Amino acid sequence: MKLSQAETPRLLLDPGKLQRNVERMAARCVALGVILRPHLKTPKSLKVAACILADKSAPITVSTLKEADYFAQGGYRDILYAAAITPNKLAHAGNIQRATGARVLLVCDSVELVRAADSRAREIVAEFEFLIEVDSGEHRSGVQPASQALPGIASALKDAANLSLAGVMTHAGHSYTTDKVDEHAAIAEAERAAAAGSAEALRAAGHDCAIVSAGSTPTVLHAKHMAGVSEARAGVYLFGDLAQVSLNTCNLDDIAISVLATVIGHNKANGSLVIDAGALALSKDIGANRFMPDAKYGYVCDVKTGKHFPGLSVQTVYQEHGMVPVPDESWFARLAIGTQVRVLPNHSCMTCAAYESYDVVRDGEIVEQWPRVNGW
Amino acid sequence: MKLSQAETPRLLLDPGKLQRNVERMAARCVALGVILRPHLKTPKSLKVAACILADKSAPITVSTLKEADYFAQGGYRDILYAAAITPNKLAHAGNIQRATGARVLLVCDSVELVRAADSRAREIVAEFEFLIEVDSGEHRSGVQPASQALPGIASALKDAANLSLAGVMTHAGHSYTTDKVDEHAAIAEAERAAAAGSAEALRAAGHDCAIVSAGSTPTVLHAKHMAGVSEARAGVYLFGDLAQVSLNTCNLDDIAISVLATVIGHNKANGSLVIDAGALALSKDIGANRFMPDAKYGYVCDVKTGKHFPGLSVQTVYQEHGMVPVPDESWFARLAIGTQVRVLPNHSCMTCAAYESYDVVRDGEIVEQWPRVNGW
Repeated sequence: MKLSQAETPRLLLDPGKLQRNVERMAARCVALGVILRPHLKTPKSLKVAACILADKSAPITVSTLKEADYFAQGGYRDILYAAAITPNKLAHAGNIQRATGARVLLVCDSVELVRAADSRAREIVAEFEFLIEVDSGEHRSGVQPASQALPGIASALKDAANLSLAGVMTHAGHSYTTDKVDEHAAIAEAERAAAAGSAEALRAAGHDCAIVSAGSTPTVLHAKHMAGVSEARAGVYLFGDLAQVSLNTCNLDDIAISVLATVIGHNKANGSLVIDAGALALSKDIGANRFMPDAKYGYVCDVKTGKHFPGLSVQTVYQEHGMVPVPDESWFARLAIGTQVRVLPNHSCMTCAAYESYDVVRDGEIVEQWPRVNGW
Repeated sequence: MKLSQAETPRLLLDPGKLQRNVERMAARCVALGVILRPHLKTPKSLKVAACILADKSAPITVSTLKEADYFAQGGYRDILYAAAITPNKLAHAGNIQRATGARVLLVCDSVELVRAADSRAREIVAEFEFLIEVDSGEHRSGVQPASQALPGIASALKDAANLSLAGVMTHAGHSYTTDKVDEHAAIAEAERAAAAGSAEALRAAGHDCAIVSAGSTPTVLHAKHMAGVSEARAGVYLFGDLAQVSLNTCNLDDIAISVLATVIGHNKANGSLVIDAGALALSKDIGANRFMPDAKYGYVCDVKTGKHFPGLSVQTVYQEHGMVPVPDESWFARLAIGTQVRVLPNHSCMTCAAYESYDVVRDGEIVEQWPRVNGW
């Protein structure tokens, strides 16, 4: 189908840009000497995963058990569910392992959780491997790398009848708070040191620690080295977005997704175009605005070239309407009612979550639809 | 299923509160002497619609053609698609009419659109009725009530081979910019006058104008009268949310939906609970914060009583994590890891859109699942 015939809003994917982003990160991980465990919370799509990983035995990361289920059913065998588990989710995780043979690696950061999880695991007659989460400076979750909590949790896992320790993980999410590449490198070093140091501390206390997992898109892209880390996690690099552009981790031309929208009105009194992509089609994420205040709810771009129309952003969103102020009246002729535009979003993880599928575009035509999984 | 056994996050619906909200608005519309055309962009659910309307010939409003299709397939016969149409959506609208016999009323606010739509309607051999949108002060879309544009569009519709005029509509969305009930009443009067006056102007120019449609939750609730208006549109009143509480259009106890979440961590260094409801489960809407700055991403409430824990809000969201600062250490014992909480969201239209269904809760048990339709 030609784009011009397509109803809007819809989510477009440029497979060439995706491929370039995939290759860039693959080359980074080879250079860093780490295995890539891509975070599939961004694409949530088997078709996208197949662009990253030739082999389904390769490790992956997910953010929900629904994703874990979907990718396990799709043939993936080594799945890290990268948020702390709770007892009421263990039966689901156990069912995925039983039904598919996949390993669903879980995360914990307290003895309290280990004990509750072991009790539940025994009830449902299931066994689970855990990574202990370490806080490398984001201060969201995880134990302090040097604290006594770390060997305490490892011992609790050793004492647990149905649980075992597989390693450590950390995520330096505070890499999103700076647009300076040298600061990304410094945060990457803190992330590396927290993960590698924690693994060493556990080994010194007599625990095995096969997996040492760390990463975020900015830190993996800008790390000087990842000595002592076995695997890198990153997700949003796949598609990029305005937030990543604002952090200097990609360029506008690297953004592989966009929202196809149509001009549905000209508000000449206000000097604005009205488009049919609003809060649901774009999301209300404005993360790019910290370092790129003209990003607003998204850059408005030419549908054919994908180039940003200078000065055009979605300034205001309603549920299904977006308002795009224009610098002068000439834009009303240039972007007549019915004209399509593309919008580059702030945050691809949030924007994509509103859509059931990606429309894969080659040469101005939608050539395939790639489904994705949403919800929980 | 007992709530305590349910995986989280999930979207809970209290049918008793929904029913109370439905009855309140029904009584308002009776008192105002207008027909209610509920905006189903909030619930997007046939089961919820059945709680509002006893009779499927009653008029409804939708925000996407996917909703129009869903409700037409579900038996509704008079459906207003309340955003300006574009030619690339007309085939879809025509197919809905043809397949179901429902009327899909469309909206326009320019001669340019009328001409393009008529050309397309003739190509696809379909006929459509239109409402002309009037701007009653929101300045999003619509023509000025007193302007020459209004009869101009009506004449273009008269000249169009396959289109006809069914009436006028307006939405005073700027009622969301004040929490003063008397200002809501003043905006309601501006909305009423714009709609009724536009209808009178069209009739004076010789046009039929059967439908005179106006409304938003704050204006319909606080209008003194709606003389000259035939029907009221409102949607978010069905569920309420923190934004509506902040606008003084409902109370906390009226909010019919909540997100069930689980405490997955205790960040004692930061004095925060970590819950498994983040940006996707709650949305990034923070609309309530303008008049209720402690709303943050949502009020954290007791799972059983539904009462707000004083001082507890979701302060920060990540994709699947929410951070809830606690006033003192005692909360870590009170809300142990694994404990469930409910979160009252900022904006129910946005939050519900992340879920495929509502879990209907009676007496602490999920007794039914009501599906909803998302996307485009």
